[in-house]
Amino acid sequence: MKKFLDENFLLESKAAEELYHGYAKEMPLIDYHCHLPPNQIADDVNFENLTQIWLYGDHYKWRAMRANGIPEEYITGNRSDYEKFEKWAETVPYTIKNPLYHWTHLELKRYFDVHELLSPATARKIYDECTEKLQSPDYSTQRLIQKMKVETIVTTDDPLDNLDHHRKLNSDAFETTVLPAFRPDEALNSGNPKHLRSYIHRLQSVTNCFITSFDDYLSALRMRHDYFSDNGCVLSDYGLERMYVSDHTHREIEDIFQKLLLGQQVSAAESLKFKSRMLLTFAEWHFESDWAQQYHLGSLRNNNSLSLEAIGPNTGFDAIGDFPQAESLTSFFDSLNSRKKLARTIIYNLNPADNELFATIAGSFNDGTLPGKMQLGCAWWFLDQKDGIEKQLTALANMGLLSRFVGMLTDSRSFLSYPRHEYFRRVLCNFIGKDVDNGELPNDIKWLGHIVENICYHNARNYFGFSPVSDSVSELA
Amino acid sequence: MKKFLDENFLLESKAAEELYHGYAKEMPLIDYHCHLPPNQIADDVNFENLTQIWLYGDHYKWRAMRANGIPEEYITGNRSDYEKFEKWAETVPYTIKNPLYHWTHLELKRYFDVHELLSPATARKIYDECTEKLQSPDYSTQRLIQKMKVETIVTTDDPLDNLDHHRKLNSDAFETTVLPAFRPDEALNSGNPKHLRSYIHRLQSVTNCFITSFDDYLSALRMRHDYFSDNGCVLSDYGLERMYVSDHTHREIEDIFQKLLLGQQVSAAESLKFKSRMLLTFAEWHFESDWAQQYHLGSLRNNNSLSLEAIGPNTGFDAIGDFPQAESLTSFFDSLNSRKKLARTIIYNLNPADNELFATIAGSFNDGTLPGKMQLGCAWWFLDQKDGIEKQLTALANMGLLSRFVGMLTDSRSFLSYPRHEYFRRVLCNFIGKDVDNGELPNDIKWLGHIVENICYHNARNYFGFSPVSDSVSELA
Amino acid sequence: MKKFLDENFLLESKAAEELYHGYAKEMPLIDYHCHLPPNQIADDVNFENLTQIWLYGDHYKWRAMRANGIPEEYITGNRSDYEKFEKWAETVPYTIKNPLYHWTHLELKRYFDVHELLSPATARKIYDECTEKLQSPDYSTQRLIQKMKVETIVTTDDPLDNLDHHRKLNSDAFETTVLPAFRPDEALNSGNPKHLRSYIHRLQSVTNCFITSFDDYLSALRMRHDYFSDNGCVLSDYGLERMYVSDHTHREIEDIFQKLLLGQQVSAAESLKFKSRMLLTFAEWHFESDWAQQYHLGSLRNNNSLSLEAIGPNTGFDAIGDFPQAESLTSFFDSLNSRKKLARTIIYNLNPADNELFATIAGSFNDGTLPGKMQLGCAWWFLDQKDGIEKQLTALANMGLLSRFVGMLTDSRSFLSYPRHEYFRRVLCNFIGKDVDNGELPNDIKWLGHIVENICYHNARNYFGFSPVSDSVSELA
Repeated sequence: MKKFLDENFLLESKAAEELYHGYAKEMPLIDYHCHLPPNQIADDVNFENLTQIWLYGDHYKWRAMRANGIPEEYITGNRSDYEKFEKWAETVPYTIKNPLYHWTHLELKRYFDVHELLSPATARKIYDECTEKLQSPDYSTQRLIQKMKVETIVTTDDPLDNLDHHRKLNSDAFETTVLPAFRPDEALNSGNPKHLRSYIHRLQSVTNCFITSFDDYLSALRMRHDYFSDNGCVLSDYGLERMYVSDHTHREIEDIFQKLLLGQQVSAAESLKFKSRMLLTFAEWHFESDWAQQYHLGSLRNNNSLSLEAIGPNTGFDAIGDFPQAESLTSFFDSLNSRKKLARTIIYNLNPADNELFATIAGSFNDGTLPGKMQLGCAWWFLDQKDGIEKQLTALANMGLLSRFVGMLTDSRSFLSYPRHEYFRRVLCNFIGKDVDNGELPNDIKWLGHIVENICYHNARNYFGFSPVSDSVSELA
Repeated sequence: MKKFLDENFLLESKAAEELYHGYAKEMPLIDYHCHLPPNQIADDVNFENLTQIWLYGDHYKWRAMRANGIPEEYITGNRSDYEKFEKWAETVPYTIKNPLYHWTHLELKRYFDVHELLSPATARKIYDECTEKLQSPDYSTQRLIQKMKVETIVTTDDPLDNLDHHRKLNSDAFETTVLPAFRPDEALNSGNPKHLRSYIHRLQSVTNCFITSFDDYLSALRMRHDYFSDNGCVLSDYGLERMYVSDHTHREIEDIFQKLLLGQQVSAAESLKFKSRMLLTFAEWHFESDWAQQYHLGSLRNNNSLSLEAIGPNTGFDAIGDFPQAESLTSFFDSLNSRKKLARTIIYNLNPADNELFATIAGSFNDGTLPGKMQLGCAWWFLDQKDGIEKQLTALANMGLLSRFVGMLTDSRSFLSYPRHEYFRRVLCNFIGKDVDNGELPNDIKWLGHIVENICYHNARNYFGFSPVSDSVSELA
Repeated sequence: MKKFLDENFLLESKAAEELYHGYAKEMPLIDYHCHLPPNQIADDVNFENLTQIWLYGDHYKWRAMRANGIPEEYITGNRSDYEKFEKWAETVPYTIKNPLYHWTHLELKRYFDVHELLSPATARKIYDECTEKLQSPDYSTQRLIQKMKVETIVTTDDPLDNLDHHRKLNSDAFETTVLPAFRPDEALNSGNPKHLRSYIHRLQSVTNCFITSFDDYLSALRMRHDYFSDNGCVLSDYGLERMYVSDHTHREIEDIFQKLLLGQQVSAAESLKFKSRMLLTFAEWHFESDWAQQYHLGSLRNNNSLSLEAIGPNTGFDAIGDFPQAESLTSFFDSLNSRKKLARTIIYNLNPADNELFATIAGSFNDGTLPGKMQLGCAWWFLDQKDGIEKQLTALANMGLLSRFVGMLTDSRSFLSYPRHEYFRRVLCNFIGKDVDNGELPNDIKWLGHIVENICYHNARNYFGFSPVSDSVSELA
């Protein structure tokens, strides 16, 4: 019987152990998609206590607490930080077989050197010990990031963001590179015309453009795209239910835009045309700027209106959707590819039933210009656990080239999430090592270790161009 | 090599064995959803022979026999009971890796102490031996239930049912509590207006109400709802392809109802509105009466018209459907939740591709008022086998709280199905025990055993209110 | 640690080894669906070099090469055969955990007795060695087929094919039976009226019929159906996104056909009606001729227009689709079944999320006339790997009768693909053997071996009527 969370956690074969300890473990981290607040990195802040750094903003934990029957006042409400922590500690023993149980104890170990299990019995001690540590300079946001050997972080930013924090960070001594990503979801949100209108007004202010036509709108947005490029941005990101695709004419789009400019409701069909146009235009810009583009697809968000009104979006009331994905995805990529405007692309899938579908669609648009041009993104959100990661790896390996995978990211708002990379690496090494053990792969650890290193680090570095390719040897001998 | 069906059947680790034998095994059974005929329980009947208790009415077996090339006369036709049994015995060796192979031998063992494998070679002997036992008072329906330590049974009943058998049972000495569940599928079946009209006529007789408007209809049904409450009912149940949701006005519903009252066909859009209204209204009543509500979703029934005409519904010609589920489910629950009328809810999923989707939708409506308010129902129908149960447990654990799961039920028409609880418990203990072995869970058998006991028994007892919560300690120390 | 690809490759238990080596291994092969070119078999050709026999026409390899960043000139372009081989050899080490890695080395072993791993380091040597062997008479297409003990091959042929090669083969001394299958996809392709019009013209020439009405069209096609029957054809095949079903009248079909006859575009609704009519009519003919019918469903083809134009269809730019399948499939089969015209049917599923759905739909139409009348087809195309095969076996076993499965086929255009049967047999034996080891099946290897032999050989032989049933004992003792 293996000890819980020991050094060979998740490694079920000798080969897996060798791959992890000999290759994966020491690779630097590239977190090419996350939601860390740039200001909190730039200001190198210390958090007041364990609740603030660990529970504030973590809707995974909130969701588990609600399922455990904890009243909202202890989750996002007015109770004291310690009372909230107590309720979380009370919930933890009920989270067995949920990734939270692993993340919780991995995070306590790796950041705080706490090896006890969190429960009501240990809550006070752990809270006090961690809170004390959090006061020390070693626990500032930048030190936490450095502690985990994070080489590059890519945040997620609205086109209107002035990127001041990124600029400050780049001129600082902070050794981790922090880059912005362009996430223009609000710019195509024709479903909420009032919101979009105010977005357009803000865009006018930021760009000093006067926007009276769709072309004006694009010109102003393009200025922001260029501004992001000038500030080191090399990738975009989208959060969509599905790819929006609909035939349209320039004239139709102009008419729809005029309505939106007035804050008027547009029909579902019009909204689809508008979004379709925006997504294609942005994608063309990404190609022209040699960026990579990321599409997060399949979520059904803000399902609980009562809670949306009370505590806002991204608070743990989202779900996996069952949108038809295949035809709109292929149609979108084909349209770009036909005009030779298809940028490097990562598609992230939220419904595990669609992993294979996504993998084969990505594979339909590889063109031999670079390894792994079209990527099946890593297991995302609800799927970010052992089972979900293994399913993504399996689909990718069976339908494409696992060896060319750009690997893991945190997608997190929390400064304590970097052990998710360790988690992924362990699952990856186990996934490959098992086959060595079984005779399904040759026992050539050096070669497999090389592939593991590529997936953990070099592939992403090369793919996003975070350093000259020559500098990052990833080809097999 | 393990012996077939030995005491550690399905238990693949030391921890799994400890959890099963030390905790799960001895817990009483709560069968909170089944299709046992209340009259056969109330009358405490003995079945004539093994075919009558085991093959009559079991469409799982029928389906396997048809796939095995057995003519219908030996399945639901005029052949003698023994001839039918022979054909079943002939089929059994062809059912390897189908749950029938396990169920068959588990049922022979647990009820009849028969340890041989059923095949043509053993058919005569097993038939005679079991048929003889079935004559004894120990094999009456009530004794069979008691033998399996079933504490509570919830049957599935039409609102028009007079519940006489339930009332008789409750006044009897029978130690198992037998409760009705309210299943009003026929009351919303606007797809078959003739059938619905005759249903309305019967409702008039039963309630002594004169029904000329939709409000009359609701009033009469509400009387039945109250009647069920008065007779101990605490949960409802629905069998639907998908959740029916469509905007509608009171006026529209009244117009549609007038057509239905005349037995006239309504359009698909009208039918959807009607069903939507009925489902919402019933759900509000359930909330007001503090019932739990169950939705069985995703089946595509009666696909074979020839067989439907020849031998009726529920005879083994159904399939798994691929209906879009996410948006209508969230919209339905959100509508209730927004008006603070969302009762405790269990959603059962028939398409294994949708397990994760269902789990996350359930999770979007937990409100902290009680643990596990929104439940992903246990593996259902075609999915009620090791693989399907593991998938349901995995989805639930990854996306929600396994520890708060209300566990297994039989969903069966047969008095010999209770070993399915044993089957489930073994799979559950194996599912948790494996992680202890792997170091993915701490080796704290007492704590995990406590969670196992909750899933097997206490959670359901508390959730449905089958006894005062204080009496059923389920909180972890 | 097991050696890579040793004699117990994929066999993870003693029972699995016994089942494979004692039963599965020596059974002859029946390849009841493939795309081998009949002329290349009939002419008993030798291929010039390893590239021509192995890389030409293999879009699996092409796809992997594109994903690996290999330019198209090395894949389908003008580079020399050896240069192309070099690029494939360069790609192989990047294909770990993709079925190509296993297929590649299994094929090198079984056909060429090459035991080295293919990589840039071994490319020259392996190319030269295999190319030399390919010159010998032992490596002609017929000898390659015989080497693998293939008893029967069924190719895939257009109704207009004259079947000359099949006739020549049947009069030859070649011991493998080579039969045609009727694949009329082009005859129902109303989505491309110009193409269909030219198809109708060719049909006129071939049949000497003058086609001016839909009835003429059917009469001419029926002549081809009879012609195929006369030439030994016993099964048909279709490649469809989903089953096309739509109510229609004879008059409507005639009107649509008149447009098609003129090469005019028809609406999507009209096209659906036309396809629906054609599929039903063909299916009736199959029943009348006592053929079996195969439906390959769920692919989304030719997604990359640029590549389609440049190098044509079937070149590696296809994907898995997410079409709704359940209702049209059941409706189609029910329509035939109601008129007692439902032939033996195999449905192949491309989206792994739909395996269970397909299995239960098949199960809804078994009628007891023969074992396994309705079949869930083996893992197809993208799913033809260990994981996909196991999922198909699992769904089939759980929802139907694995023991009645007609087993594997190659679906391949390559003369080197027969080890896929070996691959399948190993996975199958492992799938069953594992349960013996676990105590989930009785340790009765003789009985299980019998079932394995049936799935590998006898079931297909009986199902397709490739020899008198009495000659192929497949019933369990």
